[in-house]
Amino acid sequence: MKKHIYIYSPSGAVRDKAAFKRGVKRLQSLGHEVEVDTDALASHTRFAGDDAQRLAAIHRAATSGADVALISRGGYGITRLLPDIRYKTLAKAIGKGTRFVGISDFTALQLALFAKTGAITWAGPAVCEGFGALPAPDDIMEDCFADMLHDRGEGAGWRQHPGTDSVNKVVRGATLWGGNLSILVSLLGTPYFPKIKSGVLFLEDVSEHPYRLERMLTQLLHAGVLAQQKAIVLGQFTGFSLTPHDRGYRLDTVVHWLRSKVKATVISNLPYGHVQTKVMLPVGAQIDLLLEGRDALLLWGHQG
Amino acid sequence: MKKHIYIYSPSGAVRDKAAFKRGVKRLQSLGHEVEVDTDALASHTRFAGDDAQRLAAIHRAATSGADVALISRGGYGITRLLPDIRYKTLAKAIGKGTRFVGISDFTALQLALFAKTGAITWAGPAVCEGFGALPAPDDIMEDCFADMLHDRGEGAGWRQHPGTDSVNKVVRGATLWGGNLSILVSLLGTPYFPKIKSGVLFLEDVSEHPYRLERMLTQLLHAGVLAQQKAIVLGQFTGFSLTPHDRGYRLDTVVHWLRSKVKATVISNLPYGHVQTKVMLPVGAQIDLLLEGRDALLLWGHQG
Repeated sequence: MKKHIYIYSPSGAVRDKAAFKRGVKRLQSLGHEVEVDTDALASHTRFAGDDAQRLAAIHRAATSGADVALISRGGYGITRLLPDIRYKTLAKAIGKGTRFVGISDFTALQLALFAKTGAITWAGPAVCEGFGALPAPDDIMEDCFADMLHDRGEGAGWRQHPGTDSVNKVVRGATLWGGNLSILVSLLGTPYFPKIKSGVLFLEDVSEHPYRLERMLTQLLHAGVLAQQKAIVLGQFTGFSLTPHDRGYRLDTVVHWLRSKVKATVISNLPYGHVQTKVMLPVGAQIDLLLEGRDALLLWGHQG
Repeated sequence: MKKHIYIYSPSGAVRDKAAFKRGVKRLQSLGHEVEVDTDALASHTRFAGDDAQRLAAIHRAATSGADVALISRGGYGITRLLPDIRYKTLAKAIGKGTRFVGISDFTALQLALFAKTGAITWAGPAVCEGFGALPAPDDIMEDCFADMLHDRGEGAGWRQHPGTDSVNKVVRGATLWGGNLSILVSLLGTPYFPKIKSGVLFLEDVSEHPYRLERMLTQLLHAGVLAQQKAIVLGQFTGFSLTPHDRGYRLDTVVHWLRSKVKATVISNLPYGHVQTKVMLPVGAQIDLLLEGRDALLLWGHQG
């Protein structure tokens, strides 16, 4: 069934215009009506337009009446805008059926919106890195996107890393939240950080050395955030390089340390992050989490 | 006059042992008694010993009775230790005349100690990058260190960047605090972040792109921290590379943006940071700030 997809740029300027065009064409070839925001390809230094342009683009996406408001790409730029976003306008659009979808820098908007209104958004692809991918967009990502579009998607399942302790556990009625770890932590101490008790926190990041990931997790730990979570779900952490100075300190070292510091179950290998194969996740939704052996299953049922 | 200097390693492992030895010899050649902690050269993955070893080293430094407890180097490692540091032991040592001196990762200990006890420490050099520098340690840094040792240092003056608006202003009785921006921000939302009203906040950083500096400053802005400051004193921000994507977005762009967002006076070019020529600054001290034209002067009088 044909859907209306509105593409806009709240963060970094689109430099890879070929990827952007491929992404638009791909969505059209899937049968959708694609509407491209007037400033989707704007550029102001490193941003997709100045602050006023990007704010206006976010608000146009909210009043577009589209089924999906999809970011062109991530980058950096939303945290600057947080005091000026009209959260009620976005929440109203979501109430009427517009799904906001994005990743990376978009985490700032998702968490601030949830903190301010409780509205649910989707962690998922962007146009350029997702639908514009070469040689072709990932099957699983596209299936999850289609499931979301047609209200068929009711969960995500995956297998944890080999060597993960076998756990049989069920968590019911927790709030799923999270996204990019750097962005999430950059909201700590501000009014845009949601206060979530009994949560399932999912995290991913790119180009951050494990010691920096650990420092960010330490901040969440010392801020009391991790103690409020039923589970911490680690997605994909990619694009960093270890150095000779590390002498055996790796991402695994950080995960092991994290497990020693929290009561929450730490779950690995969620297919989500700066990778091609990724699921879509409803940020702010009530979910159940089922763990059996190395298998993990997030269930959210029907979300508006 | 001969002073007792205790050298220990609370953060990263010392890899450049030649620089360490040069630093120790230099301090000895200045006539000081140098005591090297038993684990100063310990190594556990990327750390100078495991958590228990580094904690014990910090507490040995506090009970050494030395005139100065000086870190070997920065790196990463103190935030992990914050819940287990015996702050009262450190404050007691400071009350008896031990000056804690360090930079970079050491900011975590300095701010946590001030938050917990109000004790004053010194932002200054480390052994390896400071006294072990080639071809020789910086004159100004060594003069400031000697002034601190002999209670002669009562201020620091410098000239702001050309192009800075001329300001004539006097701020009296503000609390001087700050250090490494990444580390300072990594304490936000935790019990280790000092709540300082009427402050003069100094900041430096290394290897952080201007957009990341801006994101961190945005967090301090949204957390309400910058609104509490009388002045924000920008030190040296070094070791980053701009990219073609930046299209004219530079450190200056961030400073300009910061000035547009805060009422506090934003002062540039403090000689402090990951550079050779740096002053020493008493973190937590009551200071006066005098601005005249492009000239800036921090005055702290005698600090215990």
